[in-house]
This record gives sequence, C-alpha cells and structure tokens, in this order.
Amino acid sequence: MPDSPIAIPARRGKAAFVARGQTIKVINTHGEQVVDTWAFNRAGMTEFMSMEHSRAGIQRLIPAVGDAMLTNHRRPILTLLEDTSGGIHDTLMAACDVYRYQGLGCAEYHDNCTDNLAQGMRELGLAPPETPSPLNLFMNIPWTPDGMLSFEPPVSTPGSYVLLRAEMDLVIALSACPQDLLPINGLGRRPTEAHFVVA
Amino acid sequence: MPDSPIAIPARRGKAAFVARGQTIKVINTHGEQVVDTWAFNRAGMTEFMSMEHSRAGIQRLIPAVGDAMLTNHRRPILTLLEDTSGGIHDTLMAACDVYRYQGLGCAEYHDNCTDNLAQGMRELGLAPPETPSPLNLFMNIPWTPDGMLSFEPPVSTPGSYVLLRAEMDLVIALSACPQDLLPINGLGRRPTEAHFVVA
Repeated sequence: MPDSPIAIPARRGKAAFVARGQTIKVINTHGEQVVDTWAFNRAGMTEFMSMEHSRAGIQRLIPAVGDAMLTNHRRPILTLLEDTSGGIHDTLMAACDVYRYQGLGCAEYHDNCTDNLAQGMRELGLAPPETPSPLNLFMNIPWTPDGMLSFEPPVSTPGSYVLLRAEMDLVIALSACPQDLLPINGLGRRPTEAHFVVA
Repeated sequence: MPDSPIAIPARRGKAAFVARGQTIKVINTHGEQVVDTWAFNRAGMTEFMSMEHSRAGIQRLIPAVGDAMLTNHRRPILTLLEDTSGGIHDTLMAACDVYRYQGLGCAEYHDNCTDNLAQGMRELGLAPPETPSPLNLFMNIPWTPDGMLSFEPPVSTPGSYVLLRAEMDLVIALSACPQDLLPINGLGRRPTEAHFVVA
C-alpha cells in the first residue's frame, strides 16, 4: 500500500526513502502541528536541502507553490506542488534541540526535533551528516518591516497539507515538533501526530 | 602590534584566533564590500555561530547593537557592540560557492566565499567542520511584507565598521566576497579588500 498515510507520532520523527518523481503529501492531521522537514540526497547524504541556499534561489522567505527548494549544491530537491494550509511555513528557525529547552527552563530531557531527525533516520539505518536548518512546515514566524520576528500559532487547519515532489532519489525526514512551552503548535501547546503519504 | 589592521585581500579569506573578551573590528575599507563572517569555538569547532539559532535567540532578521549571535549550542559567541555601517547586514543567504557561479553562467572556476572559508582556516592549520550559513556583514538583502528578497548594493560607507566582542575563545573567519556578477558588492561589481582589527 504505497499510498497509505504514515504516522509521524506526536513528539517523534519519521523518515522514508522517496524516489525521484514521487510526491510526499505532508498532512497537518489535527491542524496546528509544526512538522520540521529535511531531505537528503540518497546517493550522497552530504548533499541535502538547505534553507540558506533555497532562499537565495527562490528569493523568498517562504516557498510558494511552484518553488523548488535547493540543496547545498544548489540543485532542486523538493518542489512545492500544492499547499492547502494557508501558505505559512518557516525557513528561518533552527530545529529545537536540548539547548533550546535548557534555555527555556527545562531541567530534564525534553523531546526535540534535532534528536527526532537522528531517531527517524536511525530507523532506516542512516545518520544525518549534520543537522541542516529545517523547512518548518506550518510554522508561523511573521516578520515586521524592521525585521522583528515572533513565534505564533499555525494558521493551518485540520487535514490541510502540502504536496512536495522529489527531484532526486532522497531520504525525507519529518519531525512532529514537541514544542509545548511556546504557542508554535497552537495556543493549547499540545503537540500532536501528523501524517505523510509517499505516492 | 595586536591592534594593527589585518587585510582580508580582495576575493580571499582570512582567519584569526580571538580570545574571549577581545573585540574584532571589521572595517569596510572601501565602503561597498560584503564580508562573510564565521566564528568557531576554539575548544571544539563543531560548535559555531549559527544564523538559524541566532535568529531564534534575537528574534530579528538582522542583529542590532547589543545582540549576541548564538552558536548551534545556543550559547553567545559574538556580541555586536558598535555599528557605523548603517545597520544593514544579512543572515539569510548561504555563502557563495562553485555551484552558485556555475548557476550564474561561469564555465571556469570562480573565487567564492565557501572556498575562502576553507583557505583562511587552512592558513591556521584548521579545517571547518562544515560550512555554516555566514553572517554576511554589510550585505543588503531587503525583504518585502510578502517575503520577497532581492540582492542590492551595500548602504555602508568607506571606513565604516562593526565591532564584535568574542564571548568565548574562538576562530574568526572572514571572506571578502568575490561576487562580481550581482551588485551585492556595489553597482560597479568590483570586489575589494577589507580589514579587521583584533584588540
């Protein structure tokens, strides 16, 4: 069943192999869940989707339908084909990590997207070569004319999705962001599962 | 002479050791030269200044006087103490690289900031663990309310500078960006030298 939805469990990561030309539909199942997204060239994982290279290519802070995200070798890796989520995503913020939650006051270990990337890929027998800055799907980081940034709840709705096309054989890694201290996963601060479909 | 200006030759990189508490004055000698800037923890270079972690910390697209740039471990590494350049810098764009110039039509090798980072550090007997997204001093990438980005000439003037304080023992690496196809180093598209002072 190649097009059955695959769960990204709440607070966890999930990775999958995707062939060139296949699509990945990332579904915001419950509507307010940020999904940190990475893509690595299957043939050589030191080439990966890069936010800083993509912004230079698309000349936008947020990819729009039709835009191709680029690797650190400036090659297209994922093209945004459809977006029913309201079009608000983030390319600016690092994946959360143990340091982030320490800074927010956590004395004990907190689930985080950086570790989820490693966990998701480990389940495929892989390890990321580094932690690239992720494409934070559904994440709402507005900017002002003078460049101030803030962390806001998603504008997406339950079941809304983005559809991405793989432009090379790749490994996709997705993390259902476990942030429950800031309202980035909704004012309720309740991280949920999300789903994706490779077809 | 610890506070003699050190040249960053036109189109090249230069690196230096800086002790915690020292300052680095980066001088835009001729006024329109972008200087790509990296900083690595001297005690363990897999910790380095990160634009995506810094933006989350300062909640701005461009650091302002008083802001501390963060490492990928979310620790302060460089604090912006003074800025006479007009305050326009860039945290969004990847360092230029061979792929960038290939995409702009160069059939032969073109100097680039990614290779300059490696060259500058090699002169100290070091190698960067990866190519972090740089702090592009004096680089003018305006954004619009709807998130469009463009590559514009600097607003800085000859002799203007930024003053940074090292918050840990570090290696600073600077590249006088060799971009001569876009107007990012001025409408004349003539990359020049720049200078810095460690004091």
